[in-house]
Amino acid sequence: MTDEVAVSDRVRRAIQQRGELVNEAVVEEVPIRRPERLYEASRYLVEAGGKRLRPAVVMLVGEMLVEESLESADYREFPALHGGSVDLLAAAVSVEIVHLFTLIHDDIMDDDDFRRGVPTVHQKYDLETAILAGDTLYSTAFEVMLRTGAPAERMVEALDRLARTCTRICEGQAMDVGFETAGAVTLEDYREMIELKTAVLYGAAAAIPGVLLGASEADVESLYQFGVDVGQGFQIQDDVLDLVGDRERIGKDRGSDLIEGKQTIITVHARDHGVDLSEFTAGDSDIEAAVAALEDAGSIEYARSTAEELIETGKRRLDSFPDTAARDRLWEIADFFIERTY
Amino acid sequence: MTDEVAVSDRVRRAIQQRGELVNEAVVEEVPIRRPERLYEASRYLVEAGGKRLRPAVVMLVGEMLVEESLESADYREFPALHGGSVDLLAAAVSVEIVHLFTLIHDDIMDDDDFRRGVPTVHQKYDLETAILAGDTLYSTAFEVMLRTGAPAERMVEALDRLARTCTRICEGQAMDVGFETAGAVTLEDYREMIELKTAVLYGAAAAIPGVLLGASEADVESLYQFGVDVGQGFQIQDDVLDLVGDRERIGKDRGSDLIEGKQTIITVHARDHGVDLSEFTAGDSDIEAAVAALEDAGSIEYARSTAEELIETGKRRLDSFPDTAARDRLWEIADFFIERTY
Repeated sequence: MTDEVAVSDRVRRAIQQRGELVNEAVVEEVPIRRPERLYEASRYLVEAGGKRLRPAVVMLVGEMLVEESLESADYREFPALHGGSVDLLAAAVSVEIVHLFTLIHDDIMDDDDFRRGVPTVHQKYDLETAILAGDTLYSTAFEVMLRTGAPAERMVEALDRLARTCTRICEGQAMDVGFETAGAVTLEDYREMIELKTAVLYGAAAAIPGVLLGASEADVESLYQFGVDVGQGFQIQDDVLDLVGDRERIGKDRGSDLIEGKQTIITVHARDHGVDLSEFTAGDSDIEAAVAALEDAGSIEYARSTAEELIETGKRRLDSFPDTAARDRLWEIADFFIERTY
Repeated sequence: MTDEVAVSDRVRRAIQQRGELVNEAVVEEVPIRRPERLYEASRYLVEAGGKRLRPAVVMLVGEMLVEESLESADYREFPALHGGSVDLLAAAVSVEIVHLFTLIHDDIMDDDDFRRGVPTVHQKYDLETAILAGDTLYSTAFEVMLRTGAPAERMVEALDRLARTCTRICEGQAMDVGFETAGAVTLEDYREMIELKTAVLYGAAAAIPGVLLGASEADVESLYQFGVDVGQGFQIQDDVLDLVGDRERIGKDRGSDLIEGKQTIITVHARDHGVDLSEFTAGDSDIEAAVAALEDAGSIEYARSTAEELIETGKRRLDSFPDTAARDRLWEIADFFIERTY
């Protein structure tokens, strides 16, 4: 147990240290300029917190590839594999900005009033400003990626990956929105949805530093698959935490997905195993009874084990990369994705 | 008069012929794929019509630079200035897609129910789908630009211009939204707003083919300024048409900007000349009286002459380019921007 706590502390510190650098860099890359209200709204969620997991992946992949470490690395002039340097922090910020843009627009679509314990952007400002703040961040992500200073051929590939990632995230969100009014969703549909909505951005976070630093095509593909696998594990754990997570730290009610009628790996598995969730969620909803029924059907366990398998598969994608502290941290982040309780 | 009609017919035909190619290309570049409803919503406004002015500018600038013509040109393999070829039609489509994305999101922000005589996307579908359709088109514009096949260095510059243009459009729209609740807006504020909201996309439409085809930096800058100047003229004429245009073809009520309290070059000029528009627009609004007061104050004439000057300045930016039919059409399009009645 002591060992696990130590690992957990170490990975949290690794994420936090890089997160602080990212927070500073976001302020530099997205200054508050005219029209001020637009940029304040665009930056508002950054100041509300967040773990900066995706930029941590960007930075750690870079460290692993060139065998650098947090202590010695200048992320703004990060050594590329075959000479020259790249602003890896800009790449990390770019990926985080894409995530922030999707949060702002998703909160509008889900009509959520709070995020990270503070009012959502459309609540704090207004609908118009929230749409525009997301739109501003969207193109800013491309502008910031263009400031990495990578050679043109690599830049083009990085931008291509960024653009395709954004399109897929939209497709995934559209599928998720559609699930709410759809009939029976299959496990295959669900897996496709989370791959698009959540996992491809982790794929981009892992692959883009490879592209920018000049890794081989095969290595970039392994990195991408690492991100996609662990990103899916991350999303499935999110679905599990909605039912069994640390309420206070998650910041929303237990079973909110069930009440909203969201279809997740858990509800799909349960339905396939004869559980009628509407018994518990219609009218006076009884979330405790619903969770008990899901436990009985093995649906929560199924989700957990699926997430574990994905994390394990993802970790193995890094086996052939340099044996570095950065690779250890990436493995630990992958484990953290399913060990976290919020 | 006969001559003017002939010119007008010629420029309309030039726009229409290129518009048909663009319409076909949009269908190719943005196929309806899963999730179908998202892509149907993304493509919906394309099928509702539109003049495709911006892609026509992209194509005509290309034709002017390499002295090609509509009759002989293969826009998909368009000859670059120093050898090789570029998919100029993809560039044209990319610019149009940016325009389409802004229309969808602007209609949400302005709470408009109709556009081009059909329901707006958020009315036809729903808010969630409209936000996502705009977001999908946004990254698709980058993906399509990446398919032009230009050399990497030029591609990077084109994407940089595209990204900066999108950011500026958002800034301009935020300024415009802010004007509705702002106090006295100055002519300088108004000019900055329309430059950002409308003109920079015409700037990009003119500059990007120059970048992709390998024009000199000075030529690219002249092309950009051409677009920005005539784009501002275009927007000012829009403001004029709100008051004096062909109602049926514009498809909205006379003076709708006044009723919505929009600040335009006309209302700003009028206020600076002692006209109190609230007399006419409060309660039972009397738009005819308001227009008469604006005519008396010289505000409509001021707008018209400002637009004319901008168009003239813009046209002169092309003086040093090859004397081609394409340049004539670009000049005529510029004139068309202020001669149009809808």
